[in-house]
Amino acid sequence: MSEPLAAGSVIGILGGGQLGRMLSVAASRLGYRCHIYDPADHIPAADVAHAVSNAAWEDSDALARFARAVDLVTYEFENIPTATLDLLEPLCPIRPGRQALAVSQDRLTEKTFLRDLGLQTAPFAPVADPQALAHAFEALGAPAILKTRRMGYDGKGQVRLDSAAQCASAWEAMGGALAVLEGFVPFAREVSVIAARGLTGEVACYDPGENLHKSGILVETRVPAGLRPDHRSDAVIIAARILNALEYVGVLGVEIFVTEQGLVVNEIAPRVHNSGHWTQNGCAVDQFEQHIRAITGLPLGNGHRHSDVVMQNLIGDDLDRLPDLLRAPHTAVHLYGKPETRPGRKMGHVNRITPAR
Amino acid sequence: MSEPLAAGSVIGILGGGQLGRMLSVAASRLGYRCHIYDPADHIPAADVAHAVSNAAWEDSDALARFARAVDLVTYEFENIPTATLDLLEPLCPIRPGRQALAVSQDRLTEKTFLRDLGLQTAPFAPVADPQALAHAFEALGAPAILKTRRMGYDGKGQVRLDSAAQCASAWEAMGGALAVLEGFVPFAREVSVIAARGLTGEVACYDPGENLHKSGILVETRVPAGLRPDHRSDAVIIAARILNALEYVGVLGVEIFVTEQGLVVNEIAPRVHNSGHWTQNGCAVDQFEQHIRAITGLPLGNGHRHSDVVMQNLIGDDLDRLPDLLRAPHTAVHLYGKPETRPGRKMGHVNRITPAR
Repeated sequence: MSEPLAAGSVIGILGGGQLGRMLSVAASRLGYRCHIYDPADHIPAADVAHAVSNAAWEDSDALARFARAVDLVTYEFENIPTATLDLLEPLCPIRPGRQALAVSQDRLTEKTFLRDLGLQTAPFAPVADPQALAHAFEALGAPAILKTRRMGYDGKGQVRLDSAAQCASAWEAMGGALAVLEGFVPFAREVSVIAARGLTGEVACYDPGENLHKSGILVETRVPAGLRPDHRSDAVIIAARILNALEYVGVLGVEIFVTEQGLVVNEIAPRVHNSGHWTQNGCAVDQFEQHIRAITGLPLGNGHRHSDVVMQNLIGDDLDRLPDLLRAPHTAVHLYGKPETRPGRKMGHVNRITPAR
Repeated sequence: MSEPLAAGSVIGILGGGQLGRMLSVAASRLGYRCHIYDPADHIPAADVAHAVSNAAWEDSDALARFARAVDLVTYEFENIPTATLDLLEPLCPIRPGRQALAVSQDRLTEKTFLRDLGLQTAPFAPVADPQALAHAFEALGAPAILKTRRMGYDGKGQVRLDSAAQCASAWEAMGGALAVLEGFVPFAREVSVIAARGLTGEVACYDPGENLHKSGILVETRVPAGLRPDHRSDAVIIAARILNALEYVGVLGVEIFVTEQGLVVNEIAPRVHNSGHWTQNGCAVDQFEQHIRAITGLPLGNGHRHSDVVMQNLIGDDLDRLPDLLRAPHTAVHLYGKPETRPGRKMGHVNRITPAR
């Protein structure tokens, strides 16, 4: 096994939103410096980064300069253009690797991968034209959800179908993008497991968190989740199997539905995950540091929780509650430094802690 | 009362060592950006700062540009040249204010201030020449410690005197600097209180930590300290009295000796303090965020501790223990990103947590 990345080395992060921002802070605790690459006008991670490349994903010169300036590349989101990765890959290591990105960038590949691993998923069918959609809807039944294969997040790129008559308009709403039709999974709760695998193959998982969504956006994660002990173990085992199958290096988020038929994997995210923010105030080593430890070859934290946590996102004008939240006991506030609110925009989150049960 | 400093505002920090570095990270959590001013070749805080001015303390142009670029100035160490502060003061608010700096920059002023407040200090006498030293030594008795009035830290600028015969060489060792001779205080333990006072006068204290020094350098702080309940209360009250007397805004560290005659104040530091690093993993709001909250006019955290903590500094080649420390459960590692070790240099610290008793 090779040595861990040397202290003082530079980690390149593709994407400088709140996840890149919190990764950069965690990297600093381990003595690393972060260089952010992001085409956006405002880059939240820039406030706490060693360097920033503000250039387009297609800018091959900027990408080459970035690759030369860093010792390792990671990312805060999975929808990185393939051409960008093709440019970077010969120049420096990318962790987690391309396989994890290929699987998670495409819902069809992802669902096929999970099914082939023997895991339960929602019933699904690929949809490439209106006829295929009509057939798939007939097979899966109502309700069903039409989702773009690529670039969906926070409920975007999804249309719910309750009757065959809606198929045509739903197809049009997707603008002709390749899609997957998913059968509806009636579930009691949604949990997620934040899991990590290191360069040596070591695996560590945090306890599952229970998620609450509103309009497709995560609003709350509670740890511990209200899970039966066998489901808790199963959820962690599922995450570990996915990590090993992908020979994954880094932190991965796995969203799981708890149903009467057992655990159904909803989706995986090859990165730190909003539903893992509770670890910042519940664990000695949080998910951001865990990711940095994994990709740099350092030992992983053990995932132990010292406190129970309720994490709530501050979305849009939730920021109006800030004065009260800052006064609330046992409450940690994390703001992202975004310049203005807009409806549905994640502006920060709070972790409210209680002694671990 | 005025509004808190607006989100997105820039906080200027004089000094970019590890304290400035951890202040900058804490400020980011509250949506502020930090601009570091430091003349050093290597600036640990630069890795996680919005901007850096790398210029001399005497560079009036650089100081004026810095002052125009920030909304508020704070500092990570108390020995800032008076001329630097004189230049900055008309241009932007400095918090904590000049009075706290004036008191803590000069041991004689500090001890006089504490004594006038009715607090116990070590017996002391000002020393401006060899004759005064001889007289002071006769009055205070052996052993005694000769300390420079200004610029002392981590045991530097101190000479121990066990006999009158040593006075002449001790005076020479100080190079003619104005000094204070302090009588020896036999103490059972040293504790410190990290306390904060906000813009509205609100005060919040963390529980006292118990400190262990080696060669004049802090090596360990344990919380809770082994204190009688009445001494614990007295220690916190002492800190609060000092904060109020100085009309202080920010975090202050108070070092206190526990003796048979009660609590004796050793010294105060008008800033976040090494003995408060345990709060990073013991409290929802740590001392760095508490300082930022105080100086920006936000509500203070309440100082509650969710875990007991043993903080150990990583000094010089203690870094050799890093692989084991990264593997240790319930242990959080904090490195400062300093490029090379040298004997006595603080390279990082670890916090080992256990459930709060």
